[in-house]
Amino acid sequence: MQDGAEVIKQGALGVENEKITYVGTIPSEQEQAQYDEVIDCRGKAIMPGLVNTHGHAAMTLLRGYADDLPLKTWLEEHMWPMEAKFTNVQVHAGTALAAVEMIRSGTTCFLDMYDHMDMVGQVVAESGLRARLTRGVIGLCSEEVQNQKFDEAVRFATEWNGQAEGRITTMLAPHAPYTCPPNYIQRFVEKAAELKLPLHTHMSETAKEVAQNVQDYGVRPVEHLRRLGFFELPALVAHAVHLTDEEIEILAQYDVKVAHNPGSNLKLGSGIAPIPKMLKKGIRPGLATDGAASNNNLDLLEEIQLAALIHKGINQDPEAVPALTALKMGTSYGAESLFLDQEIGTLAVGKKADFITLDLTGAHMQPLHDVVSHIVYSASREDVVDMYVNGVPLMVNRELLTLDEEKIRHEANRAFQALLQ
Amino acid sequence: MQDGAEVIKQGALGVENEKITYVGTIPSEQEQAQYDEVIDCRGKAIMPGLVNTHGHAAMTLLRGYADDLPLKTWLEEHMWPMEAKFTNVQVHAGTALAAVEMIRSGTTCFLDMYDHMDMVGQVVAESGLRARLTRGVIGLCSEEVQNQKFDEAVRFATEWNGQAEGRITTMLAPHAPYTCPPNYIQRFVEKAAELKLPLHTHMSETAKEVAQNVQDYGVRPVEHLRRLGFFELPALVAHAVHLTDEEIEILAQYDVKVAHNPGSNLKLGSGIAPIPKMLKKGIRPGLATDGAASNNNLDLLEEIQLAALIHKGINQDPEAVPALTALKMGTSYGAESLFLDQEIGTLAVGKKADFITLDLTGAHMQPLHDVVSHIVYSASREDVVDMYVNGVPLMVNRELLTLDEEKIRHEANRAFQALLQ
Repeated sequence: MQDGAEVIKQGALGVENEKITYVGTIPSEQEQAQYDEVIDCRGKAIMPGLVNTHGHAAMTLLRGYADDLPLKTWLEEHMWPMEAKFTNVQVHAGTALAAVEMIRSGTTCFLDMYDHMDMVGQVVAESGLRARLTRGVIGLCSEEVQNQKFDEAVRFATEWNGQAEGRITTMLAPHAPYTCPPNYIQRFVEKAAELKLPLHTHMSETAKEVAQNVQDYGVRPVEHLRRLGFFELPALVAHAVHLTDEEIEILAQYDVKVAHNPGSNLKLGSGIAPIPKMLKKGIRPGLATDGAASNNNLDLLEEIQLAALIHKGINQDPEAVPALTALKMGTSYGAESLFLDQEIGTLAVGKKADFITLDLTGAHMQPLHDVVSHIVYSASREDVVDMYVNGVPLMVNRELLTLDEEKIRHEANRAFQALLQ
Repeated sequence: MQDGAEVIKQGALGVENEKITYVGTIPSEQEQAQYDEVIDCRGKAIMPGLVNTHGHAAMTLLRGYADDLPLKTWLEEHMWPMEAKFTNVQVHAGTALAAVEMIRSGTTCFLDMYDHMDMVGQVVAESGLRARLTRGVIGLCSEEVQNQKFDEAVRFATEWNGQAEGRITTMLAPHAPYTCPPNYIQRFVEKAAELKLPLHTHMSETAKEVAQNVQDYGVRPVEHLRRLGFFELPALVAHAVHLTDEEIEILAQYDVKVAHNPGSNLKLGSGIAPIPKMLKKGIRPGLATDGAASNNNLDLLEEIQLAALIHKGINQDPEAVPALTALKMGTSYGAESLFLDQEIGTLAVGKKADFITLDLTGAHMQPLHDVVSHIVYSASREDVVDMYVNGVPLMVNRELLTLDEEKIRHEANRAFQALLQ
């Protein structure tokens, strides 16, 4: 995934404690003897773990609960009433289910923006995954409740940053320009500067919310956030579907990171983000599933494939997003989008040992001619065989080592049923 | 998949010889005792096998060989030169690999349009799959070669129709209006009428070929084919990406069947077929993967998901293609498109026992609230557990019963390597 790097055939990866210490061709037997353990990965590709740059893991509990509806109806009439009933129980159960699904589909690191975030922190700590966590705050409420939510978001971001052997980092996240008054967003910006934390928000997901922004504030969301100082800090915006060329220029100029959610944007009928234009301006978007309720899964290989396919189709340009670019969007660009690229995103000496192996022997991976092409266009979640995060195995040979899948599945169904009562 | 039918919970399927004899709730123990064998399918969905309405199975050998190129360059500079080297060896190896992949991903019936079709017939016979086979004929050659190909196509269609316990049926297929002179297409139309076989062709895949058709013949491809009498017979057109509203009217009026290839059309940058408009006019498109070289897999669940997602996105309408419609496109509409709906496509008493089971216990299928939604938006190929065609098991518990997967994988790689010499 490093720019300019080639696939290493007959390769090997060395790991000591939580870090990568060797990347290259297979070392001599003598050199191998210096390692405590040598694992045979023949027939597999070793690659960086996938990075999911935007989501709401607990919403996995609402998978398939309401489909094929416009964003506003879906949110206001189906998701928000159900989510209002969420307690710690639902958030723990939904996030644990999400963790199982993410491990099984190759995601080693994910961003989560939600409520009851202590539960999410707990699941991340237990599961062994890496995560960038943030309490997503909707500001359409009294000043008192606004203050309460603000304090809670800051408390969570402060308490959990660096927890779980450093696997958890945090950020601050006003939900969106259309759900947070400008002065409320500004408070988050100021606090993020003070705490040296990145910012995250939903931006320009639908044409409707962009029009609303213009009506309410006289400018489109990019200029709105720019004026609020949002882009002066490390910032990641999710969706960025409806952008003018000028807005893309501004995002590039401020090095704003973008979480591209192709599956969710398609499913909710929001539109298709102008990724080829962003790439041309030097923006390196990460990929994301969004919540499973609008996807309806957390399979990042699927998002990689969608990113590689849909921009070719709508632009009638088969070179729009090449396979390798799509794969980088799901790994190295994702790490950059979460401001974790010093630690993860590529297989390089000194980086954290967050990697997966993919089985290359399936019929759908033959003839084994171009590994990158096959991973992007033909692999599926079950091809992910092993996962290591921070050098620790979370899945070996499709067996989960940190989580009790059966119990989690059972609890997820029970927590969902409780919402229907 | 029957119009108006509901998902049967706690359901059962009865089979005698090659046919379905019961569909309903679980029968009493007394009734069950009348069967020779009772198979426990708890935790699984039973559904009709998937139907792939357009493809070139042998091209699976060229998976990932040339990616991210425009259709014309891809075809003329990469595919055609490689395909020119194809002998019976490559077609057998590529089709056998395709058969393994199709069984593993739930496709019980596929259309194949290619050359060296006796090899394809052999693989279908051995594998136990059902297929609609046709020798695809390109007419850009001397009259002598045209005649030779025509005779071969007719010979194949006549000899193989009804073979392999009736699992093989045939059709006639001039490749496309841009690769066959009008009088050559007309000969196929006349022969198809005489043999009472359906017709198949590529139509309006790219904007370029449509413009070429107008330049060469003064009309767009739909009117061109209409004038040649193509639509007077049962006819299936693949792609149908670039259509005017008037052309959609004509296709609907003549009850022309459409094979929608979302993955291939996206990948080659051809565009996106106006499926929502077709559905509104009563056209019931089938789904297809096209050849794996432009997809790059034969996974019909993926096409179902793409069909459910992409039309919502480009039309900014989350109701564009509902989940159930997408699933019907992959099953019952597919059977209609191949003119096999009297035999397959739904689970109904009297139809052929072509069905698959899907595991519903995966983390990505929880909570188990809406089975149709989960199959369309979240299932993946490895969820397909069992497959029966004509009442015969081809895969049980992910174990292939008719094909030697390891040998096929090996031969496919060898046959591909031979092309590179």
